[in-house]
Amino acid sequence: VLRTTDLTTPALVVDADVLEANLAAMARRWPSATLRPHVKAHKTTALAHRQAAHGHPGFTCATIREVEGMAVAGLGTDLLLANEVLDTRRLGALVEDGARVTVAVDSPETVAAAADGGVREVLVDVNVGLPRCGIAPAEAGALADAARARGLSVRGVMGYEGHLQALPDLAERTRLTESAMALLLAAHADVGGEIVSGGGTGTSAVNTWVTEMQAGSYALMDSAYTAAGVGYGQALHVLGTVVSVSPPRGEMPGYAVADVGLKALGMDHGNPTIPGRGQVWFCSDEHVTFGPDGPVRVGERVLVVPAHIDPTVALHERMHLVRGDEVLETWPVDLRGW
Amino acid sequence: VLRTTDLTTPALVVDADVLEANLAAMARRWPSATLRPHVKAHKTTALAHRQAAHGHPGFTCATIREVEGMAVAGLGTDLLLANEVLDTRRLGALVEDGARVTVAVDSPETVAAAADGGVREVLVDVNVGLPRCGIAPAEAGALADAARARGLSVRGVMGYEGHLQALPDLAERTRLTESAMALLLAAHADVGGEIVSGGGTGTSAVNTWVTEMQAGSYALMDSAYTAAGVGYGQALHVLGTVVSVSPPRGEMPGYAVADVGLKALGMDHGNPTIPGRGQVWFCSDEHVTFGPDGPVRVGERVLVVPAHIDPTVALHERMHLVRGDEVLETWPVDLRGW
Repeated sequence: VLRTTDLTTPALVVDADVLEANLAAMARRWPSATLRPHVKAHKTTALAHRQAAHGHPGFTCATIREVEGMAVAGLGTDLLLANEVLDTRRLGALVEDGARVTVAVDSPETVAAAADGGVREVLVDVNVGLPRCGIAPAEAGALADAARARGLSVRGVMGYEGHLQALPDLAERTRLTESAMALLLAAHADVGGEIVSGGGTGTSAVNTWVTEMQAGSYALMDSAYTAAGVGYGQALHVLGTVVSVSPPRGEMPGYAVADVGLKALGMDHGNPTIPGRGQVWFCSDEHVTFGPDGPVRVGERVLVVPAHIDPTVALHERMHLVRGDEVLETWPVDLRGW
Repeated sequence: VLRTTDLTTPALVVDADVLEANLAAMARRWPSATLRPHVKAHKTTALAHRQAAHGHPGFTCATIREVEGMAVAGLGTDLLLANEVLDTRRLGALVEDGARVTVAVDSPETVAAAADGGVREVLVDVNVGLPRCGIAPAEAGALADAARARGLSVRGVMGYEGHLQALPDLAERTRLTESAMALLLAAHADVGGEIVSGGGTGTSAVNTWVTEMQAGSYALMDSAYTAAGVGYGQALHVLGTVVSVSPPRGEMPGYAVADVGLKALGMDHGNPTIPGRGQVWFCSDEHVTFGPDGPVRVGERVLVVPAHIDPTVALHERMHLVRGDEVLETWPVDLRGW
């Protein structure tokens, strides 16, 4: 039996029971095709197979590489690339090979790229308030017409209310989600098609307007969503080893150093935490320096909670499914890169 | 001829002429074995071969994987793992195979790990002011004795003045570096051995006390060091593609979105910049949203400067050596992971 103490650190570890509870809870709220799980948070086809086992036939992707990897893994029944891309030749090749690939478009250029690259199906990406991709709602119908004129099948619309996902006040999150989805539904009236795709873990309990929910973070979870009280458990941690301990000295308090640094952590949301073990002082390339809450020894293992899961996972080659200190399975993070 | 316009984005691109000028300038200041280039910033054996061609026989590494990869690449003449590790079996295996591997130690536990794992040579890592790894200077001699008692050869000391690297005032940086190195030299007097290893790109022009300089960032460079005026050029950028453009609308100014997001950028030093092209608004997983300085079109390429190179490189599988828009070589970032 492989134990977590045998793992090279830093290492991603996933609590098998928390993961399973998260997958089951979301599948109850959004069963079957009403959930189109987003793979960008976990980038792991083995985990996507678990989601498929909960009854979800289609998936959401953020990169061409994710679409390719999902198709290779036998999960190409209905893949949505919920992102604008210009280099669509690789997507067209997947369609040739029998995968169903739908791509988001929000401009004449991305429509042309889809048609030229051999993609046959698109969603019109609508700006619902987040200043990122997405066409203005009033212009969505004309873009759908342009896409159909290029021979593309327009399956409907998508719109991501990303700016609302982590709003702490649930009533405000609900109210603003309704407003954002009103924009999406207005665009849908002009565009047509059967799909209204949107949402994320943070709005998954309150968004009642989409026909399919794109949530992804719920599987491994993120501390920002935990703070917002969305009701899923933290399944992913970074396991580290304490490599150096310095006792208090004069006015300098004691501290310890673990091997979980900037190259093992997504840092855009700030420092990680080490719950129950100490207060993080700072991170450097290979290390986190922390003030321990109690005695600590060199060689001790610590569980670090990254401030943002998605870019954390993208730094690791594999994740380990664990129960207690037993390693049940090791999964390659096989959807990294572009 | 491969052009940068043919590259899948986001992509790391390295200006061949700036890189070569950086390598040559550092080799003039620290020739031959007086420079022990740190590979942690670039994690690329092809780039390390270029550094070796400038006359530097030994290298500094931060992880076991880096040591392994350098040995496999034929660069195992004299590898220093300037970091504390407990799991030394893989290092001992490299020594068995003929590589010269020296590891940093700062505790009885790391001494024991080195001896038990089959490593034969160590440096005593001394705390010179950065609260991270390193033993107190007054205790360094006793640790060296303990290491020798375990049969290890003690080659000398190392101490990294990381807290001083990016100090903007050169006189202060010089003065504090002298103080930090005084601690290291005092420890060296107790430890013995021929090596006093330390320094980095930020102190490489002012640290006159070490026998070997561990600089690494100078090759690709970092905007924090550029701001500190250390005199090397920015060789690395992340090439991106504009995938969406939104014109001004009411009170909302226009903006554009490129495919260089949190999974392509080290974010611990904050947002990247897009010099000469626009002001960055924010980054999300796959995107950077920016206010363009002038007209911008979907499909246009942009060069993004990450705020911190080291964790940026760790997110990419390869880097492309370029001159203008011509791709000269493509190098795997083969020292990633642990």
